[in-house]
Amino acid sequence: MENSFLRTYVSVDCVVFGFDKSQLNVLLVQRNTSSSASKSLKLPGSLIYQQEDADAGAHRVLHELTGIKKITLRQFKSFTSPERMSNKDDRAWLEIAYHNNKIDRLITIAYLSLCKINRKLNIVSKYKTVEWRPVSQLPEMPFDHNQIVAEALSEIQNWMEKDPAILFKLLPLKFTATDLRHLYEAIYREKQDIRNFHKKIARMEYIIPLEEKQEKVSHKAARYYKFDRIIYNKQKLGI
Amino acid sequence: MENSFLRTYVSVDCVVFGFDKSQLNVLLVQRNTSSSASKSLKLPGSLIYQQEDADAGAHRVLHELTGIKKITLRQFKSFTSPERMSNKDDRAWLEIAYHNNKIDRLITIAYLSLCKINRKLNIVSKYKTVEWRPVSQLPEMPFDHNQIVAEALSEIQNWMEKDPAILFKLLPLKFTATDLRHLYEAIYREKQDIRNFHKKIARMEYIIPLEEKQEKVSHKAARYYKFDRIIYNKQKLGI
Repeated sequence: MENSFLRTYVSVDCVVFGFDKSQLNVLLVQRNTSSSASKSLKLPGSLIYQQEDADAGAHRVLHELTGIKKITLRQFKSFTSPERMSNKDDRAWLEIAYHNNKIDRLITIAYLSLCKINRKLNIVSKYKTVEWRPVSQLPEMPFDHNQIVAEALSEIQNWMEKDPAILFKLLPLKFTATDLRHLYEAIYREKQDIRNFHKKIARMEYIIPLEEKQEKVSHKAARYYKFDRIIYNKQKLGI
Repeated sequence: MENSFLRTYVSVDCVVFGFDKSQLNVLLVQRNTSSSASKSLKLPGSLIYQQEDADAGAHRVLHELTGIKKITLRQFKSFTSPERMSNKDDRAWLEIAYHNNKIDRLITIAYLSLCKINRKLNIVSKYKTVEWRPVSQLPEMPFDHNQIVAEALSEIQNWMEKDPAILFKLLPLKFTATDLRHLYEAIYREKQDIRNFHKKIARMEYIIPLEEKQEKVSHKAARYYKFDRIIYNKQKLGI
């Protein structure tokens, strides 16, 4: 019986994106492993506890990682392939990390989050290091973590169409039109025409030009903008 | 150890919507139960097998239910609350259904599907009956199945924004403008202005008016339309 139906362990994994003014980055942790450094970087994650649901598990993981309790997380997909545990080294690491329990199968519920890349990271957890890595230069990661990041990238587009305000979670409080354009380009993975993009910004009434401009730059100082959530919410509600 | 981390059973549940020209309906199955008929209707679902992933499990469930192998399914959310098994009767039924295995915790991965309501249902499975029920008149169902349907209803809107063609999975091959308007109203749960709606249809180049009109109707016979996938795909690709 035990063999014919799936009784398994369930984890959560979090794909946290940050934007460094030119590209999207993902927050990775280094797993504690005595073996070689091969595939030592992975997505932050955890088995979920008996008394918590997956949302609570994902919040716990990010709290342990960053010290931050409130962060917007979006559950976007469960990864359930029986093959995701097929690598022996991955399985061995997992079983050691979880006190030598035999783990035949592990499914994971993946979460997506967007945060400012200069957010202070308080490592309060078991990981040696936490670091940002550009999505274009990710290392080979254990399990199906590379696939999870790839699907999270597509999911950002869906999320943006539903709620464009999430973009501003990735930007500093004041940003230039160029910053915003580069962010669009990173998310949609295609160049935006500069003139059209300026027209686009002008149509978004919740993007407010400030009096302030860049300082100490060698090129012509660009104007700063800010996101106005009150105007955004009014527009969204059709007021 | 067994107690502090979640080792559990994993199921899939399918919310299949059909449209009967006035409202959305959900496909429910009657569970085999010797006890009273209380909460005997539920979403079609199953524990997933050791060698399949969740997508394969969901397809298997719908194949058992309808005899159909190819159906578009969208994984939309995992339901993981430790409370979803809190009802003793639900738990007892589940343990009997699965050969008296002790099942402490069950998470489910929910799928959404849209199909024509007159599709022939070949019940090749363990269920006594399969029936359509209007979403406005659902019975109280076991576990969190009522909540799963509610969230599936919101998910249809997301899906439609990404891929409007899914609408036509719910309509017969030829349909009137009124059919289409009623479907919009059912999905968005608000009345559509008739004149504006006709303008909207006129803008959708992939909705083709036919020469054919309704027959044997007491009111003025309405024109039929059909969905043209080739034009739709060209538009979508921006050709």
